[in-house]
Amino acid sequence: MQDTTRYDPDNIFAKIMRGDMPAHRVYEDEHTFAFMDIMPRGDGHCLVIPKVGARNILDVTPESLAATMHTVQLISRAVMKAFDADGVTIQQFNEAAGGQMVFHLHFHVIPRFNGVSLKPHSGEMEKGDVLAAHAEKIIGALGN
Amino acid sequence: MQDTTRYDPDNIFAKIMRGDMPAHRVYEDEHTFAFMDIMPRGDGHCLVIPKVGARNILDVTPESLAATMHTVQLISRAVMKAFDADGVTIQQFNEAAGGQMVFHLHFHVIPRFNGVSLKPHSGEMEKGDVLAAHAEKIIGALGN
Repeated sequence: MQDTTRYDPDNIFAKIMRGDMPAHRVYEDEHTFAFMDIMPRGDGHCLVIPKVGARNILDVTPESLAATMHTVQLISRAVMKAFDADGVTIQQFNEAAGGQMVFHLHFHVIPRFNGVSLKPHSGEMEKGDVLAAHAEKIIGALGN
Repeated sequence: MQDTTRYDPDNIFAKIMRGDMPAHRVYEDEHTFAFMDIMPRGDGHCLVIPKVGARNILDVTPESLAATMHTVQLISRAVMKAFDADGVTIQQFNEAAGGQMVFHLHFHVIPRFNGVSLKPHSGEMEKGDVLAAHAEKIIGALGN
């Protein structure tokens, strides 16, 4: 049975944050970190996480949650600009039944386009050069 | 063409908050308001909104967003307890392309259960007595 209360500091997103696993980083500040989802449900799909370890929305501190949402907002505006998107979908999953697969709190930020559905969560990985190009566009949009 | 920058103070959620439209309220504080989604995608599906008018995540103030997320967390914990849920799914849609239908920032908080998929967004309304009973359970869970 899964322990739904414990934070595991060796989860994959904590490893990415520590630099122990590669990722296409788009943003970092004192409290938060954002990078490209390696299995995007659309072009420009990013993940935003707090630096302080939290399993999900049920255990995060309000302060860390507020900082994370501030970055979610920055990234949402940046992907709108970077991809000339028509909208943004935010998703956040808690526990396996809620759709969570990695047990470090994360928000999905997915640019959306009129008439384009979200791709199914197929588990297929995007090519590294595509993710790198998308990350560059977002970093550019954040910088000006 | 839809104006994607304007906040319309006569949107349905603003009317609910003002008491001009009925709703099954579960929580209210100085900055936020929460009530049952009338077209739930699962039992206990709530909506959390800021009191200050904001169209969506693109224009809300960071302070109002932080307060809204604090309430999202309170409601998430409450629905876990009220329904003995296995997880929670949070969704937040921005602009029509992003899935937004009412243009007042709102977060969906949906209790989830092992093996139970989200109901499709059919547009079917839940019975008032069912929503009232679910609201009572959530209010009870918030209170202790």
